[in-house]
Amino acid sequence: MDQIRTYFNRFIELTDEEWRAFGSCLQYTKVARGSLLLNAGEKCDSLAFIQQGLFRFYTLRDGEEKITGFFFSGDFVSNYRSFLTGQPSDHYIEAMQDSAVHIIRHRDLQSLYDRYKNMERLGRFISEQLYLTVASRLDSFMFDTPAERYLALQKRNSKLLEEIPQYMIASYLGIKPETLSRIRARQ
Amino acid sequence: MDQIRTYFNRFIELTDEEWRAFGSCLQYTKVARGSLLLNAGEKCDSLAFIQQGLFRFYTLRDGEEKITGFFFSGDFVSNYRSFLTGQPSDHYIEAMQDSAVHIIRHRDLQSLYDRYKNMERLGRFISEQLYLTVASRLDSFMFDTPAERYLALQKRNSKLLEEIPQYMIASYLGIKPETLSRIRARQ
Repeated sequence: MDQIRTYFNRFIELTDEEWRAFGSCLQYTKVARGSLLLNAGEKCDSLAFIQQGLFRFYTLRDGEEKITGFFFSGDFVSNYRSFLTGQPSDHYIEAMQDSAVHIIRHRDLQSLYDRYKNMERLGRFISEQLYLTVASRLDSFMFDTPAERYLALQKRNSKLLEEIPQYMIASYLGIKPETLSRIRARQ
Repeated sequence: MDQIRTYFNRFIELTDEEWRAFGSCLQYTKVARGSLLLNAGEKCDSLAFIQQGLFRFYTLRDGEEKITGFFFSGDFVSNYRSFLTGQPSDHYIEAMQDSAVHIIRHRDLQSLYDRYKNMERLGRFISEQLYLTVASRLDSFMFDTPAERYLALQKRNSKLLEEIPQYMIASYLGIKPETLSRIRARQ
């Protein structure tokens, strides 16, 4: 729980009352390795804060897994698009390790937004942050070569490169595993 | 001005007081065809609501113009990343026609957020909307072929295809003009 408060404090300091109201909405859940936190076709109606563990976010295209994100301890994980629009998810969220999360449901979050201006602001900050993350990933797909994308990833998140199998990293970078091997061999 | 209120009403209905407070921050500005609303290297410290006109959003990579967005009458235009982070813009915003905009400055918007919970909520809604837009563009770059991207654009925004030169459309789709000609010839 302290981990979440530290995360929020990056953006805004909640009062004790706001924090208690938020905390009372959280539900602690364990997710076994290989289990799905979200299935494709389901509506994503919660956000999960990862206390411990590792998740991958992927979709199937022409029968092939395409990984579009990895989420670590200390991150929020959700299909934010499905969460915002109410449309069914086209992605799966799968635990790659035995994991533990704190879940907050959509309707509880909306009620916190209604009750507290600071929660509303926090929601805006987090949304802005997610915008920046996805905008920067879009830039890298539009402008960078696969080798540049790999180098940027190394710089940004070396932890990811230690814990994730190479073929999943390749999928995340939008390249074939052989291409990733060649990039790594040239380093 | 009514145009802006209609735009906002898609998300939330502001009270008359909130609307007056917002309106009093707006500055009406004409932008001649070919002029820059934002120069690369500058910090983007305002949002502009387009009353009339057309803008393109582009960056230079290895001396080549790369267009990443078009903005029409009724849209907000800004370098939202630079606006949020305070970092200098790496993009230009250029009027492609004689245009007119209503501008609101960063500090005035922050003060509206402080004063009105509804403005805070509106800021969150708009940020969520921008997230969805950029996430969908990222998907199209990761998963779709150039031909699929062109067809999706036709479906989404036929106005764009009428008013924008083909070589700019090609740049926006991340393909060469010859590739776009081939795609169009096959239709």
